[in-house]
Amino acid sequence: MAKYVYDFTEGNRNLKDLLGGKGANLAEMTNLGLPVPHGFTITTEACRHYLAEGSVPSGLDQEVAEQLEALEAKMGRKLGQADDPLLVSVRSGAKFSMPGMMETVLNIGLNDESVHGLAKQSGGNDRFAWDSYRRLIQMFGKTVLDIDGDLFEHALDELKGRRQDTDLDSGELQQLVETYKGIVRDQTGKDFPADPREQMRLAVMAVFDSWNAPRAILYRRQERIPADLGTAVNIMAMVFGNYGNDSGTGVAFTRDPGSGQQGIYGDYLQNAQGEDVVAGIRNTIPLEDLEHLDKHSYDELVGIMETLENHYRDLCDIEFTIERGKLWMLQTRVGKRTAGAAFCIATQLADQGLITMDEAVTRVTGDQLAQLMFPRFDGGARKKKIAKGMNASPGAAVGKAVFSSERAVELAQQGQDVILVRRETNPDDLAGMIAARGILTSRGGKTSHAAVVARGMGKTCVCGAEELEVLTAEQRFVAPGDVVVSEGDVISIDGTTGEVFLGEVPVVDSAVVEYFEGATEPRDDLVKAVDRIMRHADEARRLGVRANADTPEDAARARRFGAQGIGLCRTEHMFLGERRQLVEDLVLASTDAERQTALDALEPLQKSDFIGIFQAMDGAPVTIRLIDPPLHEFLPDIVDLSVKIAAGKATDKDRKLLTAVKRLHEQNPMLGLRGVRLGLVIPGLFAMQVRAIAQAAAEVPGARPEIMIPLVAAVQELESVREEAARILAEAGVQALIGTMIEVPRAALTAGQIAEAAEFFSFGTNDLTQMAWGFSRDDVEAAFFSHYLDAGIFGVSPFETIDREGVGRLMEIAVREGREARPDLHLGICGEHGGDPDSVRFCHEIGLDYVSCSPFRIPVARLEAGRAALTQSDSDTR
Amino acid sequence: MAKYVYDFTEGNRNLKDLLGGKGANLAEMTNLGLPVPHGFTITTEACRHYLAEGSVPSGLDQEVAEQLEALEAKMGRKLGQADDPLLVSVRSGAKFSMPGMMETVLNIGLNDESVHGLAKQSGGNDRFAWDSYRRLIQMFGKTVLDIDGDLFEHALDELKGRRQDTDLDSGELQQLVETYKGIVRDQTGKDFPADPREQMRLAVMAVFDSWNAPRAILYRRQERIPADLGTAVNIMAMVFGNYGNDSGTGVAFTRDPGSGQQGIYGDYLQNAQGEDVVAGIRNTIPLEDLEHLDKHSYDELVGIMETLENHYRDLCDIEFTIERGKLWMLQTRVGKRTAGAAFCIATQLADQGLITMDEAVTRVTGDQLAQLMFPRFDGGARKKKIAKGMNASPGAAVGKAVFSSERAVELAQQGQDVILVRRETNPDDLAGMIAARGILTSRGGKTSHAAVVARGMGKTCVCGAEELEVLTAEQRFVAPGDVVVSEGDVISIDGTTGEVFLGEVPVVDSAVVEYFEGATEPRDDLVKAVDRIMRHADEARRLGVRANADTPEDAARARRFGAQGIGLCRTEHMFLGERRQLVEDLVLASTDAERQTALDALEPLQKSDFIGIFQAMDGAPVTIRLIDPPLHEFLPDIVDLSVKIAAGKATDKDRKLLTAVKRLHEQNPMLGLRGVRLGLVIPGLFAMQVRAIAQAAAEVPGARPEIMIPLVAAVQELESVREEAARILAEAGVQALIGTMIEVPRAALTAGQIAEAAEFFSFGTNDLTQMAWGFSRDDVEAAFFSHYLDAGIFGVSPFETIDREGVGRLMEIAVREGREARPDLHLGICGEHGGDPDSVRFCHEIGLDYVSCSPFRIPVARLEAGRAALTQSDSDTR
Repeated sequence: MAKYVYDFTEGNRNLKDLLGGKGANLAEMTNLGLPVPHGFTITTEACRHYLAEGSVPSGLDQEVAEQLEALEAKMGRKLGQADDPLLVSVRSGAKFSMPGMMETVLNIGLNDESVHGLAKQSGGNDRFAWDSYRRLIQMFGKTVLDIDGDLFEHALDELKGRRQDTDLDSGELQQLVETYKGIVRDQTGKDFPADPREQMRLAVMAVFDSWNAPRAILYRRQERIPADLGTAVNIMAMVFGNYGNDSGTGVAFTRDPGSGQQGIYGDYLQNAQGEDVVAGIRNTIPLEDLEHLDKHSYDELVGIMETLENHYRDLCDIEFTIERGKLWMLQTRVGKRTAGAAFCIATQLADQGLITMDEAVTRVTGDQLAQLMFPRFDGGARKKKIAKGMNASPGAAVGKAVFSSERAVELAQQGQDVILVRRETNPDDLAGMIAARGILTSRGGKTSHAAVVARGMGKTCVCGAEELEVLTAEQRFVAPGDVVVSEGDVISIDGTTGEVFLGEVPVVDSAVVEYFEGATEPRDDLVKAVDRIMRHADEARRLGVRANADTPEDAARARRFGAQGIGLCRTEHMFLGERRQLVEDLVLASTDAERQTALDALEPLQKSDFIGIFQAMDGAPVTIRLIDPPLHEFLPDIVDLSVKIAAGKATDKDRKLLTAVKRLHEQNPMLGLRGVRLGLVIPGLFAMQVRAIAQAAAEVPGARPEIMIPLVAAVQELESVREEAARILAEAGVQALIGTMIEVPRAALTAGQIAEAAEFFSFGTNDLTQMAWGFSRDDVEAAFFSHYLDAGIFGVSPFETIDREGVGRLMEIAVREGREARPDLHLGICGEHGGDPDSVRFCHEIGLDYVSCSPFRIPVARLEAGRAALTQSDSDTR
Repeated sequence: MAKYVYDFTEGNRNLKDLLGGKGANLAEMTNLGLPVPHGFTITTEACRHYLAEGSVPSGLDQEVAEQLEALEAKMGRKLGQADDPLLVSVRSGAKFSMPGMMETVLNIGLNDESVHGLAKQSGGNDRFAWDSYRRLIQMFGKTVLDIDGDLFEHALDELKGRRQDTDLDSGELQQLVETYKGIVRDQTGKDFPADPREQMRLAVMAVFDSWNAPRAILYRRQERIPADLGTAVNIMAMVFGNYGNDSGTGVAFTRDPGSGQQGIYGDYLQNAQGEDVVAGIRNTIPLEDLEHLDKHSYDELVGIMETLENHYRDLCDIEFTIERGKLWMLQTRVGKRTAGAAFCIATQLADQGLITMDEAVTRVTGDQLAQLMFPRFDGGARKKKIAKGMNASPGAAVGKAVFSSERAVELAQQGQDVILVRRETNPDDLAGMIAARGILTSRGGKTSHAAVVARGMGKTCVCGAEELEVLTAEQRFVAPGDVVVSEGDVISIDGTTGEVFLGEVPVVDSAVVEYFEGATEPRDDLVKAVDRIMRHADEARRLGVRANADTPEDAARARRFGAQGIGLCRTEHMFLGERRQLVEDLVLASTDAERQTALDALEPLQKSDFIGIFQAMDGAPVTIRLIDPPLHEFLPDIVDLSVKIAAGKATDKDRKLLTAVKRLHEQNPMLGLRGVRLGLVIPGLFAMQVRAIAQAAAEVPGARPEIMIPLVAAVQELESVREEAARILAEAGVQALIGTMIEVPRAALTAGQIAEAAEFFSFGTNDLTQMAWGFSRDDVEAAFFSHYLDAGIFGVSPFETIDREGVGRLMEIAVREGREARPDLHLGICGEHGGDPDSVRFCHEIGLDYVSCSPFRIPVARLEAGRAALTQSDSDTR
């Protein structure tokens, strides 16, 4: 028969699946000999059974009863015993920390009798006993009985008026207990349960049920936590931080989670229970001041912190309580930290010999590195912070506040920097969001429209700054302290922290970027840490990293950032500007000769473009994609032409162009005449480009072009253009791989055939995502992605991170069947996912040879490629 | 060691893979004891070796030499022997008949010496001998030495002037031989090879090489014949139909291939060799007249025809030669026939006991049935045929000739029927093609732009009528005999036969359609045959057949045509007409209440629509797809609105609508806010539809609604809407399956998950094809499909027939993984492919439960479903 209950002495930190994170760490600390109150954990397995069957597994009640008896024996008191009660806390604790779930009920075991026993136990501290009792009813009522917590808060506020809660005396608290019991009766139709075991039983089932609370379900969907894990329940003997001034409760970090500096960091609150710290009822004191209040406990705590850090080999965060001078550990876990701290801590731990450099690389993430690469506000500058919202899209933006999309566009066109401020955004605001330097909203979370669209644009965004009252019609917002910001007033927003500042805050470039740019030697600790980790990641990674770069300038920057080649050089920009006219000639050509004339004029221009890029890449491979977009994108706008004609200012060519624009108009240009289709339908177009590449390569020593055909869906398409390209290369005496994008689902599904004609594949995951899901990014990101993220349909936009089940499956099919057909097939990715941490890991896992991304994301890709090589699947490290 | 050469006595008709169709049938006839000239076949395996290695396999020369010796021994003469030569023919013969390949070289063995021996052999017929010699040089020159055939034709024409070729005497023919030898020397720089064995060796290799002639490659691509089969070569002792009037050559059919009537059908040409019949140099006589010329041979032929038909159990076509009163069989095969004949022959053969009814069903095709369902021109009417082109898209169309797209649109808007006549069409002609009743071109084949687009539209088209001179600028065309047709003159075109008639030809409805409509009892033989075959197919088939029908009228027709339910009832038409205004209200709603008001107004209208359809279907299942297209499709046109506003005639609502139209505008509506996305983003929309369905079902006894959610890409989308729908159904006390379209690649790739929330899948292969290939039908069919078909990239448009390798693979994945997750998952298809013969077979093969198609295609689907159940993969029956 399954064992459903574990005493803290029976578990360890490796049993998170069974005991949850909290239970496993309590067991670990118990076994380290640290002062943890006695207690036991009910397993996630019991929860799963309860959720599936609707009742607790047989045997559980018996096991709990036995464990409780053992606990009572250890403590020398019985649960809720009238004259000398044992009290316990009941806490949820799943494998992954889940804010959507019930957290804690303290003081279980109190009722109208045992409250007197508790008073006696505490040496006649009646106030303490009644305070504990009212806390029980309040927490139990809210989390177990599902009563609106405001009802209790309101009753407490009424009673205390303008006093602090410590000012309430025992009589008042006794009166509050009666009020609370009345609330319970009113709201549930039943009395507050006086039986301590019944209290405990109900609390355990409430924890189980909280696994399926709506907010918990939503959180799991968004974080992609499996729905069937269940939660454990921890039952622990109560210790009291609210006995008096020799007691208290606090949190501690083994290092500064902000900077990574070693030292004592934390907060302490005298004469309080844990939830008081969270509620912020009174001000905490810095942890180091505890040394003066209670040196014995302080020294013991410092020793324990060292033990824990050496044991966990990482920054730990700790919850503790001091009960009349005796220190108790209530929780520990590996602590969260800022991006900068993560790098510093990782290298420090390596220097201390606690971890290897391999491990150090896995202790930081690409997302953290990316955060360090955004410009940020000058830390030393004077800043007037007026609000804090969600850090929805990182970066630092400064501009004049505007309150409508139209106004944002207007001012931006005048060359002014603006911040678009809205209660919340909707698709109508798109133009304004594009025009603005940053976006600030007072409503909505990280999946709101503003957040989703801003991240998609890479634009700074703070959302859900609820302290702000945005008065759109009056074109102003009001911040706490009656700070009024009207249209035109300058504000600064920090998308990395969520802070909002009044006035212009100076922006400083990222020191990390300066380091990557090679402008500086590693100076400060952070840059030194980044440098060491990047070097180690580069040594470890198996994936190559290339850049998406279309110009010599981008190519040079990419090289500085560590790119080993260009994975995507788009050629369409080479048809813009003054060269549009040649494209117009091409489209209007009515004879082979006219068409060839237009192509002949383009060829030397393209050739010189390629020469510049080959020179910048200095012998590294350059994958050049032949022209992809539909030709009508290069023609004048239909409205402009019509107006010109109506105004009588049109030339003959304009009139012809209008006809061509109408003929080439497409309902769905994404699914139209583009890519290889253009190459097949317009004779000589691809040949011209290949000739320009071949001639440029012939002139630049060491040039290594790779020719990439876009939008291939069938091997026959590739065969047709490949033949001509190979002939042109041979004539020029130039060696170049010829390969294809895999960006259409059918290409992935027939990769075995396509590999017969392709020396390399490069996954175009932008289009592949659009076509696999059947939505175009332009059209749908603003229209419904925020709905989808809120409803948990996506955990993350599939345009940010590769959708493994759909798009990823197509990639896996293509990799497997492509390599079967051609074992030396070279495989890469050049969609924007190539710079996304999770996607880089996926590319490593399915065995690609390289990823290619925008120059700025190259360090992220290098780091993640290193991490991927150094770890197995990270599904267990969330 | 492989055996590369088979004597005709060694093979049989089952060895087509090895001996090709012609060789296998020659062997079969030989073994039946029929009078086939002696000969042997070189296998396709030898050809494959030659093509792969560039040289004939070792041992082949030796085997050929031995077989030739054996042949010489049987015939008592040696190849090219000067005084009494054996002559042979060399013919290609692949597994599948391929017009792109070299066909035949006759008279091999002749040279300046043996021509005299042949004259002697023929009893001093010098003319015959020299004629045979010049034919050898001409055929050999053209097909083996690759010389332009016109050079020989031109020399012949010069010599004979206005005489028939039989008027040339032996001296003139001898002179022609010298001229021909001169041409060979001029064109190749070498003399015509005099060595008979060298002639044979070169001819064999030329046959091998012809496998990879450009036209052969193109033909294989278009017909999807594997490229690696290779061809066999047949070498046969010559018999001569050109010895004189006691000789001749002919073709015969064992039944009338036009009607299926039993009897003697064929043509005979006295004193001629086979190619003369094909070339049409002189007029043939009806085969039955042979009885008067040579009763002995005639009777023998009639007996052989009966033998062959009984042996092959099908209509056979035959090539034969009579040499001085002796009948020889040169070829037989199962003969082509018209659609009507196919049905009649199949049932006749069943009545004769030659085949079973199961086999009879497999002897006809859905395409043939479809041909019989088009209206056709009255057979009895007086018709003036003025030209014949390719039968590019079937049907019968009558209208005034017009020569430009603009004019077609103009006259059509006036309510006139027009036929668009062009040299060839291009994407600019699209509007005119839509406006016209039919399309006629003088250039291009079945893959030309006109043909591809017309088939896509289901519009009658005759293309490549090369006898017509189309003078677009002068708005007229000229037909043979100086018939001039000017704009406005009425013409009639038959897309089933390719014929073009002057004036209006009366159109009669299809008798087969009248029978399906139930208007008539089977009367004539054809309808009786169709009736019997359809009944048998219905008994045999495992696939259900449903209809795509949106109205009670369509539903009723579908029932009459044999639909077992509705597989796709679109609901978007229910938002058109006067109801558009309600959709406008829905889009403009700015509060929940306004939105609900608009939805409440739509609900009773939808309900009454559904009642009508449930009544028409009388207890058969009705799959209703919730609204799919983007809402902007229901709003007024942006240009119309702008004009109205500019003209000062706009209402407030118009102004609001313009804003909404702009906001809802999409770059790629196909990939936009539609399908389930609408249902998730617009609260209450799907609920309104489901409520209307539930209430309608509650009012119609026996109604069997099935609710289908479109455009699902992720199970989470389906779960979200499914929950609400299930609740509404339960409240109304109505039972209904809830399922989803599989029309987005990701849905197929995650079908295992989606099946957890779907009781049925219906494959939307139109969208699935668009997204798997990455092209939108609207945009690309006209723009480049004809290029693609010509280049062999498609064998057939993937919108006509399911692309098995890409789209089909997605379907197979979805079927397999969907059924694994839910064994009783109900599976259908509702894309237009559901009525395409090859696609129906594919649906049978992958195990769907039903196909759904337009009412008119239902009989085709029923027949093809029966055929699929009665046969294995048809890859061998091409």
